Amino acid sequence: MITTRDDVDLFSALADERAALAAHLSRHCHETLGEAAGYLTETSAYVLAAPGKLLRPLLLLDACRAAGGDPERVLPAALGTEYGHVASLIHDDIMDGDELRRGRETVHVRFGLNEALLTGDLLIFQTFLAYTQCAERGVEAERVLAAIRTLSLTCIAMCRGQALEASIASRLDTSPETYLEMIRLKTASLCRAVTRIGARLGGASEEMVTALGRYGLHLGTAFQIMDDVLSYDGSSAAFGKPRLSDLRNRRVTLPIIYALRDGTETLRRRIEAIFTGDEAGDERDSDRSDGTEAYARLVETLHSAGGLARARGLAQRYTKLAQRQLDLLPYTAARERLRALATVFATRDH
Amino acid sequence: MITTRDDVDLFSALADERAALAAHLSRHCHETLGEAAGYLTETSAYVLAAPGKLLRPLLLLDACRAAGGDPERVLPAALGTEYGHVASLIHDDIMDGDELRRGRETVHVRFGLNEALLTGDLLIFQTFLAYTQCAERGVEAERVLAAIRTLSLTCIAMCRGQALEASIASRLDTSPETYLEMIRLKTASLCRAVTRIGARLGGASEEMVTALGRYGLHLGTAFQIMDDVLSYDGSSAAFGKPRLSDLRNRRVTLPIIYALRDGTETLRRRIEAIFTGDEAGDERDSDRSDGTEAYARLVETLHSAGGLARARGLAQRYTKLAQRQLDLLPYTAARERLRALATVFATRDH
Repeated sequence: MITTRDDVDLFSALADERAALAAHLSRHCHETLGEAAGYLTETSAYVLAAPGKLLRPLLLLDACRAAGGDPERVLPAALGTEYGHVASLIHDDIMDGDELRRGRETVHVRFGLNEALLTGDLLIFQTFLAYTQCAERGVEAERVLAAIRTLSLTCIAMCRGQALEASIASRLDTSPETYLEMIRLKTASLCRAVTRIGARLGGASEEMVTALGRYGLHLGTAFQIMDDVLSYDGSSAAFGKPRLSDLRNRRVTLPIIYALRDGTETLRRRIEAIFTGDEAGDERDSDRSDGTEAYARLVETLHSAGGLARARGLAQRYTKLAQRQLDLLPYTAARERLRALATVFATRDH
Repeated sequence: MITTRDDVDLFSALADERAALAAHLSRHCHETLGEAAGYLTETSAYVLAAPGKLLRPLLLLDACRAAGGDPERVLPAALGTEYGHVASLIHDDIMDGDELRRGRETVHVRFGLNEALLTGDLLIFQTFLAYTQCAERGVEAERVLAAIRTLSLTCIAMCRGQALEASIASRLDTSPETYLEMIRLKTASLCRAVTRIGARLGGASEEMVTALGRYGLHLGTAFQIMDDVLSYDGSSAAFGKPRLSDLRNRRVTLPIIYALRDGTETLRRRIEAIFTGDEAGDERDSDRSDGTEAYARLVETLHSAGGLARARGLAQRYTKLAQRQLDLLPYTAARERLRALATVFATRDH
């Protein structure tokens, strides 16, 4: 990727906004939780101290700006969205048995299962509390209520996506369509929701809400495809998640689906052997094999069969689809930043 | 308890309303969840098929009626409140390692940990979605938003109560005040919230909201004290929860605190031995002892030391405090039912 002067400005502005958001998050959570919160004070401070990419609050705030709204008024919704996302990560890590997140121990490994479960619940409630606080900043109650409704429906869709993902684990006959439906529910629906919510709370017309919502949906789809690609093709130093997780959880993601569809018979058989054999690192066999060898063999096979390249290609196409929606909006600096954000997330290497 | 003609009418009306609420819950959840929800369709149907006492939605609806409001308009909030309560039970059962609830296997035992965790999350989101639906039934957006704010703050308080409870496990030096603070956060705060919410959504004056909120707080306190008494003194046939749970989780509840404070030196030593020894049924020692003997010895000791009787006495006092708040309201059938509900729950044997 060629870096221009504009890119440097964008990245520097993004870094500033991320730092400000992270500070807001920690302060807001601490204030709302109060003093006598037992271990929750420590666990919530721990997760919020490693704030990650903050994609969702950034999308919400820029969608609001692109619609001509005041980001200060919708800041609580941006914070709330991130709480909800972090809550889902904490609970997902329990379900997936993952031990690393953002380069640090996951909450259940560091503090225990009960502590992680309750911290996730706490952050879900913080999500909804934060949303209501937009009304205190002057957003009309009807709009805030509509945002909460969108958010609840989206979170229900995310739960359905999670259940669907579990149901297709190990299913090597999963179609690209089923995979795409699953990631739409699990990931893209929230990106769609936050761009719609940002736009609506910012006072956008229905056309703008729809365009920004579609931008979010396509961007979220590209984002999750890249996430699944990077599990096998990422820069391992920067990648804070355990790379073996997808294989250990027998997750049939797009690179695998494409490799099975388009690879040679030999490559297909190799993938099947890795997924059905003990070598994939089943926890019961953790003494015999931690899955590292199977993982390396899978990476090589996915490269040879072209699965990773093709999945990257689809992510690029969704990125372009997302950006095309932005052409329906009037020019604003926020619109151009949303365009750049899509490129940043679709070409990232971690 | 002497049963009068009025009591019979009350119980029959309660049974009818419970049946109607249970039917609403199942239908509402199914409609909102949609068809493609994987195992969530089955798990949510499973938990909602054993609806329990439905105390919280009953309180919300009667508080609304006592304030002169239309219960049809606030029905979604009543359903939402029950979702939230059921979600907390599912997650609590995971944390406590309990295997029985309402006489059936708990969700994590029946379906697995991941499935139970996600079902709890789903029901939390259903809670907030349901609340927003009051606006579709004609409640002003400002009032609905205030209800969602109260609910979120209360759920955060419940998480704090849960963390506080964990922090005093095994702490035999816990004071009655700390115990009361913990159950206020964990249980009574939600009863206070639902009576306030029902009153406010029903259009009550601030005075009525306050009186009904205090009624809920005192009733919830009495309710939880009775719950803790019934763990050692309940009718086992009707009691759907595993009675050993409190002891296994080293829960220092009011009967124990009172017994330690007021019992003889011998009885105190006996309680300490049960709590500090292996005999309390530690899971690591499950082959050696399932805790049944220690439990029986504890029950006998709590009776001898007067801890159970004194805790019952305090529950009665809170019940009276709750009922006294109702005298501040004008006469309505709903007010009298709230009065009777307090008696029913404070004298229950399961």
